[in-house]
Amino acid sequence: MRVGASSQRVLPLSLNWFKDANGAAFEQWSHPMIRKGEAHMSFIEDARWFTVAPAAGESGQPPKPGHVTLVGAGPGDPELLTLRAVKALRGARLVLYDHLVGKEVLRYVAEDADLIYVGKQSSHHTLPQESIIDLMVRLARSGRSLVRLKGGDGFIFGRGGEEVQALAEAGIAFDVVPGITAAQGAGACAGIPLTHRDHSATLVFATGHLRGDNEVALDWEALARPRQTVVIYMGMGTLPIICRELVRHGLPDSTPAALVEQASLPGQRCITGTLQDLPALAQQHRVRPPALIIVGDVVALQPQLMQGMLATMV
Amino acid sequence: MRVGASSQRVLPLSLNWFKDANGAAFEQWSHPMIRKGEAHMSFIEDARWFTVAPAAGESGQPPKPGHVTLVGAGPGDPELLTLRAVKALRGARLVLYDHLVGKEVLRYVAEDADLIYVGKQSSHHTLPQESIIDLMVRLARSGRSLVRLKGGDGFIFGRGGEEVQALAEAGIAFDVVPGITAAQGAGACAGIPLTHRDHSATLVFATGHLRGDNEVALDWEALARPRQTVVIYMGMGTLPIICRELVRHGLPDSTPAALVEQASLPGQRCITGTLQDLPALAQQHRVRPPALIIVGDVVALQPQLMQGMLATMV
Repeated sequence: MRVGASSQRVLPLSLNWFKDANGAAFEQWSHPMIRKGEAHMSFIEDARWFTVAPAAGESGQPPKPGHVTLVGAGPGDPELLTLRAVKALRGARLVLYDHLVGKEVLRYVAEDADLIYVGKQSSHHTLPQESIIDLMVRLARSGRSLVRLKGGDGFIFGRGGEEVQALAEAGIAFDVVPGITAAQGAGACAGIPLTHRDHSATLVFATGHLRGDNEVALDWEALARPRQTVVIYMGMGTLPIICRELVRHGLPDSTPAALVEQASLPGQRCITGTLQDLPALAQQHRVRPPALIIVGDVVALQPQLMQGMLATMV
Repeated sequence: MRVGASSQRVLPLSLNWFKDANGAAFEQWSHPMIRKGEAHMSFIEDARWFTVAPAAGESGQPPKPGHVTLVGAGPGDPELLTLRAVKALRGARLVLYDHLVGKEVLRYVAEDADLIYVGKQSSHHTLPQESIIDLMVRLARSGRSLVRLKGGDGFIFGRGGEEVQALAEAGIAFDVVPGITAAQGAGACAGIPLTHRDHSATLVFATGHLRGDNEVALDWEALARPRQTVVIYMGMGTLPIICRELVRHGLPDSTPAALVEQASLPGQRCITGTLQDLPALAQQHRVRPPALIIVGDVVALQPQLMQGMLATMV
């Protein structure tokens, strides 16, 4: 598949379950862009991806596994990539990337490299996490080196820990490049210091996604404490619960709180309010994921700091 | 003062209090490298730094304030600078930098730019924070644009919040470039995922420095909870207190814990143990600041992950 004039191939994948002739279920990765009605092309049957490396094939030995670099892509602005991330992307022949990776970031990938989209959205995984890991391990085992590119920092709510653990178990060598996590991008671009001696001695990152039983699995007692900044990732769907529980567990409902949407990107918005009015503000301004919830007295500094930052843009 | 063959000037500063002819105290910044016995050269009397910008001077108007870019330098490895940080450093004519900024990072500053070291160490500030802010504001007010370069991320325990607040109050325009914070550098380079679905749902950053009354001002109840990763910055001096209090407030003394010294730099070391034996291990291995304390079940993954990462280096 060609993107523009380059030979870079973008391969969005989805997982499908089929029944074989005996009625047993089996799964196949498919390219969803193949027209309906055609037979699904099985990704795992596309031998090109899993051919034995030539040298190894000739000697009849199993291929030498490839190397995996887990790269944090930062919050979206490509200028917030680290030098090491750029180096990894420029040198990559194959990149497995997520939904939260900024489009502009992918421009650093060489034109003739292969890109596989294993997109993740809060409510919809194109590939379940287990299958991403399985795919990555198989590709590396077949001799292909690759970059595994994740939004933010792969070790902060990126499930990068699970991915490198699987690599270690499979005997595949890897390295990790940290990335600017969304909270840092939001703080820097929206003017919210994450810590501040006068307001916050502790910084807490948590996730607000629902557990299977429709409960938000957060330790409210730990979050609802004074003198700390709490940043909640993936919490837009559960914002009313989060604000309500923080107040129920002891934070004043006047505690300053903000939503930062598309941190660091041109569409960035920062909505500030309190634990009491934030859910209504979110509805009013139609804030959409990915957005961060930031709670704590440091949020009260935002309007003043934003003025100094806006002066920069003039 | 020349560094090597370049015309870059490094100006380490210290603050001194003097009495004037009437016995009133006044303060002066001095270059501590000037020999004892000589009169202290007053930095604030060095007119070159505070001259009115030529255009403004001619018209008799006060100078247009300079612009300040607060840049996070990351954990030390210059490859962990962001592209935006590199751009800011390359374009800077004047850089105020801290002790925790890696030497290699300064190579990105133009050769003919001026560097002012306003070093910070855990127990010794070459310039007190208030004086750094005062100096920065005066320089900007006199018309000089500058980069304020801080180790890690300026908004995570970097006191960058206080600095930009002072700029906003003084009507000086600024922008903020986030940096990889030490915990991210340690996680990526030592093989410790900071969050992991099986082990940790929350990530907490805190500081372990002493308050004036020799107490560690930490919220032990919030830190000593299950299923979270706690990273303590500037805690080496109080490590025994930290480990003791976390156990006293409910964490098992078998909780995995690590010290990461010089994260991301060639001298990096990672010592893993438990809350029980970490203080003894720190002594045995002579771990020195700056080092991070990481507490939580994710630390137990470190030996396995490090193997996969060492395979990379072979």
